[in-house]
Amino acid sequence: MPSFAYVNRQYVPLREAFVHIEDRGYQFADGVYEVCLVVSGRLWDIDGHLARWARSLAALSIDAPISDRALRIVIAKLLARNRLKDALVYMQATRGVARRNHPFPLQAVLPSIVMTARHFDLAKSDSMAQMGVQVITAPDIRWGRADIKSISLLPNVLAKEAARRDGAVEAWLVRDGCVTEGAASNAWIVAKSGALITHPLGNEILGGITRQTLLACVRDLQIRVEERPFSVEEAFGAQEAFLTSATNLVMPVVQIDRRAVGDGRPGEVSRRLREAYKERCVSEA
Amino acid sequence: MPSFAYVNRQYVPLREAFVHIEDRGYQFADGVYEVCLVVSGRLWDIDGHLARWARSLAALSIDAPISDRALRIVIAKLLARNRLKDALVYMQATRGVARRNHPFPLQAVLPSIVMTARHFDLAKSDSMAQMGVQVITAPDIRWGRADIKSISLLPNVLAKEAARRDGAVEAWLVRDGCVTEGAASNAWIVAKSGALITHPLGNEILGGITRQTLLACVRDLQIRVEERPFSVEEAFGAQEAFLTSATNLVMPVVQIDRRAVGDGRPGEVSRRLREAYKERCVSEA
Repeated sequence: MPSFAYVNRQYVPLREAFVHIEDRGYQFADGVYEVCLVVSGRLWDIDGHLARWARSLAALSIDAPISDRALRIVIAKLLARNRLKDALVYMQATRGVARRNHPFPLQAVLPSIVMTARHFDLAKSDSMAQMGVQVITAPDIRWGRADIKSISLLPNVLAKEAARRDGAVEAWLVRDGCVTEGAASNAWIVAKSGALITHPLGNEILGGITRQTLLACVRDLQIRVEERPFSVEEAFGAQEAFLTSATNLVMPVVQIDRRAVGDGRPGEVSRRLREAYKERCVSEA
Repeated sequence: MPSFAYVNRQYVPLREAFVHIEDRGYQFADGVYEVCLVVSGRLWDIDGHLARWARSLAALSIDAPISDRALRIVIAKLLARNRLKDALVYMQATRGVARRNHPFPLQAVLPSIVMTARHFDLAKSDSMAQMGVQVITAPDIRWGRADIKSISLLPNVLAKEAARRDGAVEAWLVRDGCVTEGAASNAWIVAKSGALITHPLGNEILGGITRQTLLACVRDLQIRVEERPFSVEEAFGAQEAFLTSATNLVMPVVQIDRRAVGDGRPGEVSRRLREAYKERCVSEA
C-alpha cells in the first residue's frame, strides 16, 4: 500500500506529494512545523502541539492554513488512509508561494500546509529506553529565536549529523558553558541532590510539549525541579540525565561525550518519569 | 510567454515547477543558493558566484548537483528559453529528497537543483541609486555561520520585513554594537577621514561577491579601505554609506534609522564606486 500525504487540501500518494519551488518554505525556511505522536490510535499531547503550532505561526505572522478543528480531521483522515494506529504525524505550514523576495508578499497568499504520517514503534522506543542513549555536546550556534518551531533547521541538522558521526543520537547544545537543549529535544539532568534541572523557557530553547507535560508529572510526583541553565560540568557530574521530545518521550542518557552518567545505566528517576509520562498521555488522550 | 524554470535536469514552465515535500530544502533549510546578475546577455562576476556556490556546498557536505560547466550551460539555456538579456538568475541546491530525519541521509541521495530567471532592469536600479535608499538597524540574531550562503533565511526575512514596514529597503544587522552586514547585502561607510569601512570576512558575514569585486576596484582607485567592524554611531556620523549585493550593485544609503547620512544625498565616493564596479563587470563579463 502506498503512503499518503496531505498537501494543500488534497490527499495524495507520498511519491506524488509536491510543492512549488517558490514556496517560501523552500527558498527562505519561512514556515513552522509540529511532530505529534499517535499511540493505539490516540494522539498524545495534541492540545499542546496545536497551541504551539498557533504560537509559532503567530510569531511569524503567518495565517493558520486551516482551523484547528479541520487540522484534527485531517490528522484522523491521514491516519486512516495510511492504516496507522501508532504513528508520528508531521505537519508543516509555510507562508505560501510568491515570487522570490525576502519581505512578506505584499499581496496576500494562501499559506501552504503539508502533512505526513509514518509508523512509530513504541516497543522499540521502550527497548531503547532500557539501554539508554549517548549524546555529545556541541556549540549552540542557532539563531536568537529557538523558541519558534520553525523549519530553519540547518544548525540542528549539522549538530545531529555530528552526533551521528560520533555514534550518539543527539547533540546537547552549549552556549556560554551551559546546555540550552538538544538539537531536537529538551535536556534534563538529575543532580546528586536529587533535584531535576532543565533550562528555563525563553528565546534560547524550544518550549517542548513533552517537557511541559513532564513538568506536570514531576509536580504530581513531588520531585523537586529547578528550571535554570546547567553547565556541561554539572551534566558530567549528574546522577542521571535524560532527554524529552514527542518522538523520544522520556529517554535516559547514559553517556555524554563518551563519559558515563552516574553508573552508566538508565537511572531510577528517568525510568519513573518515562512511565509517569506514558500513563498521563494514555489517560488524557 | 510563460516563464521557464530548471528543476532537477528538466526545463519546465514555472507554474509547473515542483519539488517533493520531503526535499530537505523544504523541511530543514538544508541547502544553498546564489543570485547572479545578467546584463546585456553577460553574466557578471560569475566566476566568483560559482566559487562561492562550491564553498557553500562543501561547508554543508552537499555534493555539487551538476558540474560548473553544466551549470553555465543551464544558465545560458534558461536565459534563452525565457528570452532574457537582462536578468537575475536564482539557483538553489539542496541535499535532496529523503525520509524526514535530521542527520544526513545514510543512503546517498541525489542533491536537488532548481533555477529561475527573471527580468532585471538596470536603468531602474540606476535611478534608485540616483536617489539613494533608506536602511534601518535591527539586532543580528542570525546563526553563527552567516558565511554559508544557505537557504536558512528566516531571520533575514524577518529583518527585511521590519525594514519594509519602516519604509526602508534593507536592515543593517547589529551585533555587539557593530554593524555586521545587511539582511541581504554588505554594509559600507565612508568615514569623515575618507576611508572606506566594511566588516571583515569571517563567520559573522556572508562574503559578498560584489563586495569582493568592489574591493578590487577600491584598490585600483587607491581609496583607503579598513576591513573592520564599525559601530552604529560611526554609521550615523559617516560622510557616506552604501550597500553592495548582486541585485543592488553599489547602492548609496542616504538614511539610517531615518537619520540623514552626510547631507542626505548619495555621496561622491559611492557614485564613483558604482560606476567603477559596473565598468569592471562589463569589461570582465
